[in-house]
Amino acid sequence: MASDLRTQDIQNPVDVAEYLFRRLHEVGVRSVHGLPGDYNLVALDYIPKAGLNWVGNCNELNAGYAADGYARVKGISAIVTTFGVGELSAVNAIAGAYSEYVPIVHIVGYPSTASQKNGMLLHHTLGNGDFNVFSKMSKEISCAVSLLNDQHEAATLIDNAIRECWLHSRPVYISLPSDMVQKKVDGDRLKTPLDLSFPKNDPEKEDYVVDVILKYLHAAQNPVVLVDACAIRHRALDETHEFIVKSGIPTFVAPMGKGAVNETLPNYGGVYAGDGSNKGVRERVEASDLVISIGAIKSDFNTAGFTYRISQLNTIDLHSYGTKVRYSEYPGVRMNGVLKKVTAKLGQLNVEKGPKPNNDIPDEEVKSPEPTITQAWFWPRLGQWLEKNDVVITETGTANFGIWETRFPADVTAISQVLWGSIGYATGSCQGAALAAKELGIKRTILFTGDGSFQLTAQEVSTMLRNKLNPIIFIICNKGYTIERYIHGWEDSYNDVQEWKYKELPYAFGAEKDSVLTYRVSTKKEVEELFLDREFASGDTQKLRFVELVMAWDDAPVALKSTAAAAAKTNAEN
Amino acid sequence: MASDLRTQDIQNPVDVAEYLFRRLHEVGVRSVHGLPGDYNLVALDYIPKAGLNWVGNCNELNAGYAADGYARVKGISAIVTTFGVGELSAVNAIAGAYSEYVPIVHIVGYPSTASQKNGMLLHHTLGNGDFNVFSKMSKEISCAVSLLNDQHEAATLIDNAIRECWLHSRPVYISLPSDMVQKKVDGDRLKTPLDLSFPKNDPEKEDYVVDVILKYLHAAQNPVVLVDACAIRHRALDETHEFIVKSGIPTFVAPMGKGAVNETLPNYGGVYAGDGSNKGVRERVEASDLVISIGAIKSDFNTAGFTYRISQLNTIDLHSYGTKVRYSEYPGVRMNGVLKKVTAKLGQLNVEKGPKPNNDIPDEEVKSPEPTITQAWFWPRLGQWLEKNDVVITETGTANFGIWETRFPADVTAISQVLWGSIGYATGSCQGAALAAKELGIKRTILFTGDGSFQLTAQEVSTMLRNKLNPIIFIICNKGYTIERYIHGWEDSYNDVQEWKYKELPYAFGAEKDSVLTYRVSTKKEVEELFLDREFASGDTQKLRFVELVMAWDDAPVALKSTAAAAAKTNAEN
Ligand SMILES: Cc1ncc(C[n+]2csc(CCOP(=O)(O)OP(=O)(O)O)c2C)c(N)n1
Ligand SMILES: Cc1ncc(C[n+]2csc(CCOP(=O)(O)OP(=O)(O)O)c2C)c(N)n1
Ligand SMILES: [Mg+2]
Ligand SMILES: [Mg+2]
Repeated sequence: MASDLRTQDIQNPVDVAEYLFRRLHEVGVRSVHGLPGDYNLVALDYIPKAGLNWVGNCNELNAGYAADGYARVKGISAIVTTFGVGELSAVNAIAGAYSEYVPIVHIVGYPSTASQKNGMLLHHTLGNGDFNVFSKMSKEISCAVSLLNDQHEAATLIDNAIRECWLHSRPVYISLPSDMVQKKVDGDRLKTPLDLSFPKNDPEKEDYVVDVILKYLHAAQNPVVLVDACAIRHRALDETHEFIVKSGIPTFVAPMGKGAVNETLPNYGGVYAGDGSNKGVRERVEASDLVISIGAIKSDFNTAGFTYRISQLNTIDLHSYGTKVRYSEYPGVRMNGVLKKVTAKLGQLNVEKGPKPNNDIPDEEVKSPEPTITQAWFWPRLGQWLEKNDVVITETGTANFGIWETRFPADVTAISQVLWGSIGYATGSCQGAALAAKELGIKRTILFTGDGSFQLTAQEVSTMLRNKLNPIIFIICNKGYTIERYIHGWEDSYNDVQEWKYKELPYAFGAEKDSVLTYRVSTKKEVEELFLDREFASGDTQKLRFVELVMAWDDAPVALKSTAAAAAKTNAEN
Repeated sequence: MASDLRTQDIQNPVDVAEYLFRRLHEVGVRSVHGLPGDYNLVALDYIPKAGLNWVGNCNELNAGYAADGYARVKGISAIVTTFGVGELSAVNAIAGAYSEYVPIVHIVGYPSTASQKNGMLLHHTLGNGDFNVFSKMSKEISCAVSLLNDQHEAATLIDNAIRECWLHSRPVYISLPSDMVQKKVDGDRLKTPLDLSFPKNDPEKEDYVVDVILKYLHAAQNPVVLVDACAIRHRALDETHEFIVKSGIPTFVAPMGKGAVNETLPNYGGVYAGDGSNKGVRERVEASDLVISIGAIKSDFNTAGFTYRISQLNTIDLHSYGTKVRYSEYPGVRMNGVLKKVTAKLGQLNVEKGPKPNNDIPDEEVKSPEPTITQAWFWPRLGQWLEKNDVVITETGTANFGIWETRFPADVTAISQVLWGSIGYATGSCQGAALAAKELGIKRTILFTGDGSFQLTAQEVSTMLRNKLNPIIFIICNKGYTIERYIHGWEDSYNDVQEWKYKELPYAFGAEKDSVLTYRVSTKKEVEELFLDREFASGDTQKLRFVELVMAWDDAPVALKSTAAAAAKTNAEN
């Protein structure tokens, strides 16, 4: 009775699924990733009604990776899976998004509330009548879990979940039981947009922290700025840019922070990662008497094996969750407000110039008569070819270390999973990123993946074709898991992979002959020709481009070599 | 010190990894599925040393499915993944094995115990220093979790895990930290094989139950036997066979029990699944005054949507965990011992003949002038072509409902995931099953999958090629998710899939032109010709065979139609 009354009270009833998808539209989602399953089928009918596009991935893990890539370009994303089989297939992608602070709304089609209550022995269950076991697993990798088992809570739970997702920049989990999809909620709520603003810092505390920072900044002789992943993921890029442009302080990025900063700025100095830094960078950063560190994640691969050598006594750490000046901690003082005020009050600073990275080919490479494409040659050469606004995705392997040596044009979005490091990610992510880019009018999405990694998620090229996406895909063909060889098993067969005819795949996935351009380049000269090819490079062609980029099995970027050696050592230690 | 002393005490020290893999060899594992990762690389070196073969899958979910298929043929299997990214990719496959009682030993390469203790910010972590979060997730879908953090416990934990895996016929999880791999344990333990025998029933209790069963059996006028999945998974097939051969009672199988019983036996009566039963079976089974039910799992898809109509008053339930006679329960009285004794003491029974299934093509199909391959025609026709010992894998979709209409030759192993129902499973499973079959000298492994399902895990065809496996693969090409259309979204685009050129794939995956035979059959006549083709049908060729089997998008086996309608109804109910 109560429930019926409530429903009658509603002036402007909308179905739960409609409410959910309209909220997602409101926060910027335009395409929903995932796969159908009988527990979510009815919900899928609401996607076009809310002005959204259904992607239809090949499997759920790939859909999760794609949603991750989409969110990194557009700010948030959504994926729909089915109970048990679908959601668990996506778990690794969701864990990666949790680890790397990527906001994904994961909607899981559940058996009806009645089936759950009766503990029915349904398909996609463990056969034990427990319908909470999968949400319990997802709780570990979600910043909110909302189970929509009650019509009267549904709208509130949906709003909370989406808000948490946005503010914490991490995945949330929403269960949508099949009988809840068409239940009514109050549509008038939709007239008030979700409040997605970060809670303001306490002004007095913030002013205090700003003064402390300014004191150190004014005293510093040769300060530097170091920008890392959390500046991107926690939406502090505007404040960061204003600070570095106005201050003129030499600015460096950690590998996970690549793309955070306009690399054509006069004070951009390159990648700092301890022993894996760009040329001249380590010396400059480690000699600095003050490092303004914005959004750092000091993980092993982000620091070339913990070879980061900056004293905390010379460091000011700005984070989403607080500020730390030397050893003084100011929990709850978020970076955005602090940076804004510091920038406003900057005053006179001592600025000592830093190195200027370029995309010059190293001398040895210029002199070398070898035709083979080397890692040392390729990545700076790539930097010369990239264009403003490109979205560049690099896979864990030689690619995501190689890219440290590429100086970007302005406004490049760089995507890589340096902390989570799940291979196969990049290809799935490329599908989502290319779709997001298309929605934003960005013209080129460029993927660099390894032959080993590509094999995990290759079918998502089919999803790109199905959705008429036209990224430029490079498969680094180097006969297997080169990064692993550098850690252990140099010539062991477990580091080999089956040799595919990679560029046949788009056709096997149903591409029309003239909708894809395929290439195989084995020499520097062929790369040069490829980069000069107008149709290949075009941001306006409708054609997907697919390149086999042949490199030696035993070649790797220097930064990878030292990081791999450090990893092998850490693994052996006890 | 203590630890050093202990190590010196050991007469015959072997490394932890060697111990583990030798134990796996002892219980029948010959091939290990999985992917390398830096946390497991050193452990992989021990695989060949223990006489095992490394498969090298394309991704971990597929490796998990393959391990499942391998275990269903060989009795147990093993998979190695790496921390976080690898193990979580496999979670859905492990959950499926948990749900369907398949024994898989899941070995996860972990960061070193020192790194764990220090809470290091390593790749493949959530960045929070918590190294227990993934094992916690796996606990929900494993019958044992053994974390090898201490050298002195390692051998015991390994033994326990493998024993639990075997006895409960469910996955277990073993963490192997990178620094633990080469720690020494007592190799003399290996001289005593693991005790894998089921605990004996209490003899007095067992005798009591046997007498009760015999009383009902002797009183029955027209008893039947119904065999289901748990008879297979809990290793009671020998006892089951002796019972049905000696008793001569008409015997039926539930869909998940298909393959449990020799279908050429004179008293084999066909598939019972309520409204989805083979012709004449429902009438016979539901008219029986006593059903001896062996290893039942009464899930929705196994009962054609809960249309199972057998009174508990007419039922004797035999299980791995206990026996139930009408409503009297005898917990702990395991089926194996009971069946053996009942068979020994059978005496005179009233046996009334049951239906005799054959592979005759239904009349309407024989008469139909249509050349199109119909589901109603294909599955009995297939039954005529199958051979003794074949391993037959059917995917969730039209295939695993169609196979209900196929009467098998003797000793067929049927593999299907009727309860868990994760699509993509069948292709991965086929890789593992084909490898297990090869190790056992079984000549033909035959896969039926759907065009939609195949797309989730297609790359495992590459692993088949890499491992020189030669299964016969049928892709049912019917323009998408037909099973889903029957539940909801008849012509909705979310039930379409990208149209692949399926038979180009083996070549793209690196197959030599003459190592694969590919076909496309669109008419009954072409199927007839294919089935007559000696090279296609051969168990001795080294060639993988790959068939596009074209069927109508709106055609489905009758049993699927009624089950789908029931599922749609259950999903809507509240
Ligand atoms: C899902 C997953 N499985 C396994 C690994 C372990 N791993 C890390 S890198 C790598 C090999 C990558 O090889 P490839 O893509 O060919 O890169 P490259 O040869 O350029 O180094 C593997 C197996 C992982 N990171 N993620
Ligand atoms: C991992 C997973 N994702 C989604 C589903 C939901 N689902 C069940 S069957 C099916 C379609 C299968 O289509 P296909 O393989 O083409 O079979 P057919 O057309 O023969 O029915 C889908 C999407 C599932 N069972 N498992
Ligand atoms: Mg490679
Ligand atoms: Mg299909």
